[in-house]
Amino acid sequence: MKAVLMQRGKLWVENVDDPTPGPGEVLVKSLACGICGSDLHAVRHTEDFVTTSREAGGAFKLTTFDPVVLGHEFCAEVVDYGPNAKGPDTERRFSSGQLVCSIPMLLRSQPLAIGYDEKVPGGFAEYMVLSERMMRPVPEGTPVTAAALTEPMAVGLHAINKARLNGREAILVIGTGPVGLAVLTALSGTHQGPIIASDLSPGRRHFAQRQGADAALDPSVEDPFAHQDIKRAKELVIFECVGVPGMLDRLFLDAPQDARIIVVGVCLQADQIRPMIAINKELSLQFVLGYSMEEFDTSLRAIADGRFDVAPMVTSEVGLDDVEATFRSLADPEADAKVVVNPWLDPGRNRD
Amino acid sequence: MKAVLMQRGKLWVENVDDPTPGPGEVLVKSLACGICGSDLHAVRHTEDFVTTSREAGGAFKLTTFDPVVLGHEFCAEVVDYGPNAKGPDTERRFSSGQLVCSIPMLLRSQPLAIGYDEKVPGGFAEYMVLSERMMRPVPEGTPVTAAALTEPMAVGLHAINKARLNGREAILVIGTGPVGLAVLTALSGTHQGPIIASDLSPGRRHFAQRQGADAALDPSVEDPFAHQDIKRAKELVIFECVGVPGMLDRLFLDAPQDARIIVVGVCLQADQIRPMIAINKELSLQFVLGYSMEEFDTSLRAIADGRFDVAPMVTSEVGLDDVEATFRSLADPEADAKVVVNPWLDPGRNRD
Repeated sequence: MKAVLMQRGKLWVENVDDPTPGPGEVLVKSLACGICGSDLHAVRHTEDFVTTSREAGGAFKLTTFDPVVLGHEFCAEVVDYGPNAKGPDTERRFSSGQLVCSIPMLLRSQPLAIGYDEKVPGGFAEYMVLSERMMRPVPEGTPVTAAALTEPMAVGLHAINKARLNGREAILVIGTGPVGLAVLTALSGTHQGPIIASDLSPGRRHFAQRQGADAALDPSVEDPFAHQDIKRAKELVIFECVGVPGMLDRLFLDAPQDARIIVVGVCLQADQIRPMIAINKELSLQFVLGYSMEEFDTSLRAIADGRFDVAPMVTSEVGLDDVEATFRSLADPEADAKVVVNPWLDPGRNRD
Repeated sequence: MKAVLMQRGKLWVENVDDPTPGPGEVLVKSLACGICGSDLHAVRHTEDFVTTSREAGGAFKLTTFDPVVLGHEFCAEVVDYGPNAKGPDTERRFSSGQLVCSIPMLLRSQPLAIGYDEKVPGGFAEYMVLSERMMRPVPEGTPVTAAALTEPMAVGLHAINKARLNGREAILVIGTGPVGLAVLTALSGTHQGPIIASDLSPGRRHFAQRQGADAALDPSVEDPFAHQDIKRAKELVIFECVGVPGMLDRLFLDAPQDARIIVVGVCLQADQIRPMIAINKELSLQFVLGYSMEEFDTSLRAIADGRFDVAPMVTSEVGLDDVEATFRSLADPEADAKVVVNPWLDPGRNRD
């Protein structure tokens, strides 16, 4: 099959062996797979990513310098259970042609992180194998590209759940790339308090307002902490969705007394903070990652029934041949919010 | 009056003018005043302390390079209201000879931090002025040195309150200097879950067990995170009471998934962390500082009625002439937990 491989920051297309489903596993066609900020990190900062992942443990990890097929935000179509599908692990709940999403985790004796492991391909390839127990049917009528956003929306939902909001806090979302937009989309329609977004890019501010921000500010022109809804707030929760060195210390300086900072952006590099500034204001930080199975299911349901209005976030769909160029162009935030890779985009290359 | 002055890390004894109480203020004799870790910081890292305080704002601050009289953990004896004590601000609730404690804050048009401000002396001097509204009578029979621990015990109580404990978590107290001991003392007798302490010093581990730790470990010999009570814990709350650079990153590496870190130790220097390690484990940090008026009152009451058993923590009492030497010897944690300065220790120098 055709796949996009990544090694030490290089991306290329190559024909590789089709993956073979083991017991309890299903062969699927990857129909749509979002490019995640973590994928960009993995390509641009492979060394940092691998080093920190090896040291930190946890679920979110690229621990290999071998070639990998990235892609963990996918919607796929069931092909076949394969010759090894027998025994108590295989329930045969799915049939060929059915659309599914899945937590990107393959339940082998040692669980594998789909999209980060050299042993199985992620969604930037024509075929993948998934664990039946992790798979969820996509409700009828849900667009494939919207269903592919189940995973990043679960990340946003999880961040909100970890923040334990009472619904009345003022919210400040710093950085409105895909993660910030997921937070805004999940807040939208349920949160009573004001929701302010901040991003340097006009394009991203535009998306932020479309996904539910009451106002989207350019921090180079207007200090978001001087906005009346933030200044007046009795309680302030800040979602840090940028993840670059210096952001936390900047927030320590800018945030008011008792602000709660939810760290959703993934900063791979070592970072410098001045604890005494946070101490003087009694700030709190909650670092968050991933989501639960329940949050994944909630996210898929909310996308299917329209509560999570994700369609505007998908700004383009590219084929495997364009992945490398797209990774380069995502450095420019003006044009794109979420780019979805469709491995079958050129019908001439579709071998079915 | 006789006072200990501090400027840019130097400490010396000098005769200075007695302070004059303004409206709503009372002249008191400082009878006992604890040496706080922040005092040590102020002397050893004046430059860092002032720079960060000026930048950070907040209540806990030394913002001047002028000579100051340190000391903010005191018990004092009422002398007189003074000639300016009239008008609606003066209630005359206190009488001469009465023992009092006070939040170290003087309520002038611009509130002054007693013990950090060049305009009024702290407790390392024979006399001070206090705001009547901040003063609390010391209950009958409470030893003066115990009452002087009201302020640091309020810090420990506040840290516990900010941690919002359910009473069943496993607790790990890292560092059992005066702050760690205050946390242990305030937890002791009310917390149901296991309480483990960790400190490099045998002397401090000894104090930790006396103040209620179920076990006190030497982290150079035994990894506290490998202790069975910590490993088995469903919920773990870590009180970081050291406050030196590198501690937070070390805790990020060592702490288990979902651990909550309460940052009580005051690290004045810039510090380096690796956010991704905290992200992978979904750790949270709550920075804490100070206490409320209510917590101060609770602390004084609990000391008076014996619930906060602080007497063993007071390991020595020194006069003003010995303050400078004591600041140097506190670098050695073996001998001392809390040292209390008694400006009237040598009766020959008592001018009353």
